[in-house]
Amino acid sequence: MSTVITSVDVHDVRFPTAAAGDGSDAINRGDYSATYVSLRTDGPQTGAGFTFTNGRGNEITCAAVRALAHHVVGRSIEDIFAEPVAFWRSLSADVQLRWLGPEKGVIHMATGAIVNAVWDLRAKLEGKPLWRLLAEMPTEELVRSIDFHHITDALTPAEAAAILDKGLVGIDDRLHELERDGFPSYTTSVGWLGYPDDKVRALTRQAYAEGWRAMKMKVGGPIDDDVRRARIIREEIGPDALLMMDANQVWDVDEAIANMARLAEFDPYWIEEPTHADDVLGHARIQQAVAPIRVATGEVAANRVIFKQLLQAEAIGVMQIDACRVGGVNEVLSEILMAAKFGVPICPHAGGVGLCEYVQHLAIFDYLRVGTSLDGRMVEYVDHLHEHFVDPVRTRDGRYLLPEQPGYSATMKPESIAEYSFPDGPVWRQ
Amino acid sequence: MSTVITSVDVHDVRFPTAAAGDGSDAINRGDYSATYVSLRTDGPQTGAGFTFTNGRGNEITCAAVRALAHHVVGRSIEDIFAEPVAFWRSLSADVQLRWLGPEKGVIHMATGAIVNAVWDLRAKLEGKPLWRLLAEMPTEELVRSIDFHHITDALTPAEAAAILDKGLVGIDDRLHELERDGFPSYTTSVGWLGYPDDKVRALTRQAYAEGWRAMKMKVGGPIDDDVRRARIIREEIGPDALLMMDANQVWDVDEAIANMARLAEFDPYWIEEPTHADDVLGHARIQQAVAPIRVATGEVAANRVIFKQLLQAEAIGVMQIDACRVGGVNEVLSEILMAAKFGVPICPHAGGVGLCEYVQHLAIFDYLRVGTSLDGRMVEYVDHLHEHFVDPVRTRDGRYLLPEQPGYSATMKPESIAEYSFPDGPVWRQ
Repeated sequence: MSTVITSVDVHDVRFPTAAAGDGSDAINRGDYSATYVSLRTDGPQTGAGFTFTNGRGNEITCAAVRALAHHVVGRSIEDIFAEPVAFWRSLSADVQLRWLGPEKGVIHMATGAIVNAVWDLRAKLEGKPLWRLLAEMPTEELVRSIDFHHITDALTPAEAAAILDKGLVGIDDRLHELERDGFPSYTTSVGWLGYPDDKVRALTRQAYAEGWRAMKMKVGGPIDDDVRRARIIREEIGPDALLMMDANQVWDVDEAIANMARLAEFDPYWIEEPTHADDVLGHARIQQAVAPIRVATGEVAANRVIFKQLLQAEAIGVMQIDACRVGGVNEVLSEILMAAKFGVPICPHAGGVGLCEYVQHLAIFDYLRVGTSLDGRMVEYVDHLHEHFVDPVRTRDGRYLLPEQPGYSATMKPESIAEYSFPDGPVWRQ
Repeated sequence: MSTVITSVDVHDVRFPTAAAGDGSDAINRGDYSATYVSLRTDGPQTGAGFTFTNGRGNEITCAAVRALAHHVVGRSIEDIFAEPVAFWRSLSADVQLRWLGPEKGVIHMATGAIVNAVWDLRAKLEGKPLWRLLAEMPTEELVRSIDFHHITDALTPAEAAAILDKGLVGIDDRLHELERDGFPSYTTSVGWLGYPDDKVRALTRQAYAEGWRAMKMKVGGPIDDDVRRARIIREEIGPDALLMMDANQVWDVDEAIANMARLAEFDPYWIEEPTHADDVLGHARIQQAVAPIRVATGEVAANRVIFKQLLQAEAIGVMQIDACRVGGVNEVLSEILMAAKFGVPICPHAGGVGLCEYVQHLAIFDYLRVGTSLDGRMVEYVDHLHEHFVDPVRTRDGRYLLPEQPGYSATMKPESIAEYSFPDGPVWRQ
């Protein structure tokens, strides 16, 4: 029995978050938005996927999804997964659309939305959460799902297979551990640049009381402000909890090195996005200068080729994969495996809208089947907008609980889609 | 007297080139297209700019131009050029749209179209071709037009000023030379992958007879085919003419090194785009392996940060700037100056539709005011679609003649826009 994709619906869904200062950092002030894709089929199931955007321009990624949709309409899930790389390249290497990237920005984010919806559909058809579908998948099929084009100098199919085979050892024990304890996470809800000092202090205190022992603050404003806010947070959390810092790319390379020299007294665990996301060599110089503070990046890393170089150049100590900036599950698999080969822990990027829902699956799969360690692993957590999802993340004592429903947790409630559709939903008509 | 931009018209213009095999290479098979921007003003002048795309998806860059248009409507040219970096960042660092790049792909190409139209408008208002406007501009104003964010580790404003000041020495002699001889170029019209062998031989013979002594062929198909075609071209052009090869990113790093070992017998002058455009470290490894053959890249380099790293890593021997992949004239200025600092010659990317019209201005400015040498400098030339421009390129004996009309040579004929508008123009309605 095959399930055929009959149409691709695209929804421009935007949440008016900018006004509240949530999500404001050194360079972004966003209305958290989703280019939301729903794959209808000839059966009862639908596949859901999205890419996250920051408000204005969400109509552009929606247009890109429409430009790519003909590559999936009329195809069956069985056909797609019979030749997964050919399918993936039909999107990522379209002979005309590729020019718009290649494999970066709008066109690649749209690819990610569609590819993720295809995986969501498959997981639903098999009745498994995506993390379980992946963790239980034969090594041969996982390897066959990855496009190794342009990364064979860092990871070969044989190396990937060896990592995945080794990941089968002890997998049941790791699963029981996660079922019992959940997956470690950290919170980014305390230190947005848009918040005044007293709000930062109050949120930090509250988060600590809730059990969080790892918190992230935004930096990249005037350095004296960054220092003052870092002091507040460190005072509240004490010397043992982890404090991460995130500059959202605002610094030049030498500026990053100088500013981290000032912020080092607050013992940051990592400095995230210290400079331009494309600057592999810059990150490498910064990592060398600020060690033992780790350099972290990835939420704006355009594709597996950027991640490959960050690893090859020893430019990062933490790799922050994103679920929908790159071309969906197939590409993320290659990134997770490269990180394992180079021995760099993955701490996925989340927040925005729906990113926590997505990345929990990736982190769980990584632990169960690839990385096989929780050392230095944490999933970002931001307490925003989960109420709009059918299967929202659940946390307990600062840890993610395992998703149990079939799929990729990407399905949005129909009433939320209607309410927040841009520009015609009730929220935006006002 | 100020000139105010009153509206931004966007046209989706596509030429049906894919069917003929023109422009086919290892990864592209395009209908050459322009996201064409026309800035109307409160005066008689309009500004024209475009970004080049490959057919399908041109509606996405058009949507991106519309999303950015509010940053120019209502502004005067005088205001814009009073604070050029603030203007440029209003487009490239928009707090919501930036997420869609940043500074790459669709959103950045749209930025380039608008920025170029603004420069075209200014040049027209001053009654000068763009190359002359730039070449005669005071050093201080040129430096003030560049956003040095994220490149200060490679080029400081003081270094840029020193290069530009030095470029004033002998500028009149260089101008007289160009007026007399034109600017060197090479042709890419001989060796597209879509052409059969006998067509390659005939086109090569014809180009040689027309005076071309530098020609580029596409490689990246089956290596035996590449070898056979290279032999044909080298037979036709003899040992002294230059033969360039272009793989359009199709190879992995080790594959590029192996294939160039086979193609070396045909004495290639450069290998262009041997691997993924984002792979700075890969290009560096290839350059080290294939020397003295030069590695060339740039037509898909997303922004100045990628070019910066290619130079820092000594990954290229030829830098191929593009006029509208990056954020327009302001960003290209930074790239031209970085190339000069690192001593790498610029050979701009052209072809497609309108790219020759654009880049001739950049190459001429580079020679007059920055690079000050013709050694190793050539502008790509492809004999396609020039008839659609009001001020098309003119060549003589394989050299570009200096543009004389005011502006950036980007203005398309109204009848061409109407004829090739997608999907409603007569060409596409059939």
